[in-house]
This record gives sequence, structure tokens and C-alpha cells, in this order.
Amino acid sequence: MITRRGLMLVLSSPSGAGKTSISRKLLEREDELSMSVSVTTRPRRPGEVQGRDYLFIDPTEFQLMANRNELLEHAKVFGNYYGTPRGAVEEALAAGKDVLFDIDWQGTQQLAANARQDLVSVFILPPSTRELERRLRTRAQDSEEVVAQRMAKAADEISHYPEYQYIVLNDDIAASVEKIRAILHAERLKRERLVGLPDFVRGLQDGSGD
Amino acid sequence: MITRRGLMLVLSSPSGAGKTSISRKLLEREDELSMSVSVTTRPRRPGEVQGRDYLFIDPTEFQLMANRNELLEHAKVFGNYYGTPRGAVEEALAAGKDVLFDIDWQGTQQLAANARQDLVSVFILPPSTRELERRLRTRAQDSEEVVAQRMAKAADEISHYPEYQYIVLNDDIAASVEKIRAILHAERLKRERLVGLPDFVRGLQDGSGD
Repeated sequence: MITRRGLMLVLSSPSGAGKTSISRKLLEREDELSMSVSVTTRPRRPGEVQGRDYLFIDPTEFQLMANRNELLEHAKVFGNYYGTPRGAVEEALAAGKDVLFDIDWQGTQQLAANARQDLVSVFILPPSTRELERRLRTRAQDSEEVVAQRMAKAADEISHYPEYQYIVLNDDIAASVEKIRAILHAERLKRERLVGLPDFVRGLQDGSGD
Repeated sequence: MITRRGLMLVLSSPSGAGKTSISRKLLEREDELSMSVSVTTRPRRPGEVQGRDYLFIDPTEFQLMANRNELLEHAKVFGNYYGTPRGAVEEALAAGKDVLFDIDWQGTQQLAANARQDLVSVFILPPSTRELERRLRTRAQDSEEVVAQRMAKAADEISHYPEYQYIVLNDDIAASVEKIRAILHAERLKRERLVGLPDFVRGLQDGSGD
């Protein structure tokens, strides 16, 4: 019997490209895809659920995980640590389930270093400068300066697009979701992800397969 | 503006795996996909149309094309020559159209040597030995020996599956067509196939994109 190894689907984009809405809809449509749950040392906020939003752990524990190479990627953001536990991801992949990652180019580089074979990376681009600016101007009272700062940050993030395998221009959320679903469905058919193929083929060749 | 370079979609399989029905339905569903028309030196049969089924040419012309490196792949079968003209394929790819090839592993190896970047290769496998045998037993009066010969030939063809990027197990024609459509749609989003991406990204970054 042929089964498949799961894959790690990474979506990255500058903020304002629509990634969050796309991720949510993808998870609704795809049963065999679930979001990676990160560990973090930042305090839990009201409404957040341990093990659903994050695994909240203390800094000593985080350091131990990092030292034991139990994190596929990790980063420090505003004084708090965030990381992706290797164990849960490995378990999902071995069971033929796919894992979705909403991470930036730095996280993606670390994942690629640790699990290149299982990685499928997609960079989502806004359809135009005008649209990007419109999405970054989140409140009417945003000053030109604040918007310009966000544009500069987006420009920096966008410069990393050549590190990704697939590019999706998000001019329509529903269409972008379908594009990423096609990527997911196609990547599942990659020869190297299939388990049991040599035995299956031997059965076909010698007539012993049922 | 971002456009895309077309791709060469190769489907190979042992006979009896359902490739012909799959190709026909794919072409019906996909506007931007057309079948590669081969040149051949074999005589035209009744009902065949010049330029649709084949480009029928004489052996001298074929030899000239081969010498000028105008064929992406060619082979001799039962004393006749068959080949894929480079010009028509190159034109389609440059115009962002995809080309479908129904060729065997030898043709695929030659295409890979001549156009690896543009190649997307899919190997279609029958779902079981029983099903393969059923499909190879095309007429009730086929002797066991004839069927055994066809099975041996199929076993040889199947041994080349590791040379392909994607594997589709054809247990249902409609499902297989959808799988290959997903491969086609995903491969169109590969970063290297997109034309104009650096300029587009520069426009986003410096705010000059519309």
C-alpha cells in the first residue's frame, strides 16, 4: 500500500498582503492540514488557550528545548522567545498530515536548514502598491509617517521573495486560496513524499500485487 | 506586469494505466494546454490530418531537422522516425501556453536533457496488478501468452518511475485528471516560471507600482 509523508506548508508575506485570511480559509477547506502550534515565553493574554494559541512555557524550559535541538526554528521578538517544537511536527508528517506555518523569512530559512525535504514555501505578494498602501493604512487617523514606516518594513520583507518556491499574487482571497490548495494537492503527489512505492511497484511487476 | 512562461507537461505510463483517457479529458478542461504535434516519417493513415495528428515529413527532412538540433526528442519505432519539433514548443512556452506530451521514458529523458527547467513529469501507475492485467487483456480471445508478454513490457516501463517528479495512481479517471490539473496549476506558480517579477517587486518596494 502506498501512503504519504506529510509536508510543511510555509506561507510568508509582508503584512498587508492578506496572509491571515488566506490561512484561515485554507484550514477550513483542508482536513489534513493543521496549524503549527508554537511555544512562547511571553505571558498568556486573556482569551488565549494553552496548547491552542501557543504552548506557554517558561524561559528555562525554552532554553532547554533549544539546547536539545527540539526546535525547528526560533526567534526573539520584543524580548520574548518563540519557537516551533520539532516533536509535534515530526509526528504529524509521519502520520501523513500536513502542517501550516505562518512565519517570516527568517523562520523559513531556519526551517529550510532543518527540514528542506519536507518544506513547501509560498510567498504571497500584494497585487499593487496602491492596494498594499490601502491595507497598511489600517486606521483613518494613521499619519503619513506611520504608513511610510510600514511601507518600508513591507519593502524589506518583500525583498526575500527569491527564497521561496512558489509566488501567489493575492488580488482575490478566494482565488489565492484555490492556488495554494493546488500547490498542496500537487506537492502531495511528489514522488519523494510517497511511502511504500518500491514495494507497490515490485508487486505490479511480478504480478503479486492484488 | 507579471506573466508566465509555459511549461512542458509530460505524462508517461505503461500501457493499460489509462493515460490516453486522462490526456483527452485534461485537454478538454484546460484552455491553455495543447498537445504537442510530432513529426513523423511514417505514411499517413486514412482519417489522419496533416498538422493535427502528425506533421508527416519525408526521411530527408527529418534527418535535416535532427542534424540542425530542431528536435527536442526523437526515436525510431518499427522503422519509422518520430520527433518533437523544438520551434512550435518554444513558441508556445514563450507565449505562456503549456504543452502536453504523451511520450515514454526514453523521450522524457531526451526532453529533460534539452529543456529541464520547463519540464514537469508525471508517471501514471495502474492501481493494482489485477487492474493492469484486466486492462491489458483487451480482447476475450487474448491468449495467456499474449497477456504475459504485455505484462512483461509493462513491468519494464514501470521500472522507470523513479525518473519522474510526480506519481499518480490511477484508480479513478476523474480523480486522476483533477490531480494532474492541480500539478499543472501549482507548477504555473513556481517562482522561476514567472516573468517580470523583479520589476513588479521593485515597483512595490519603491511605491512606483500602480
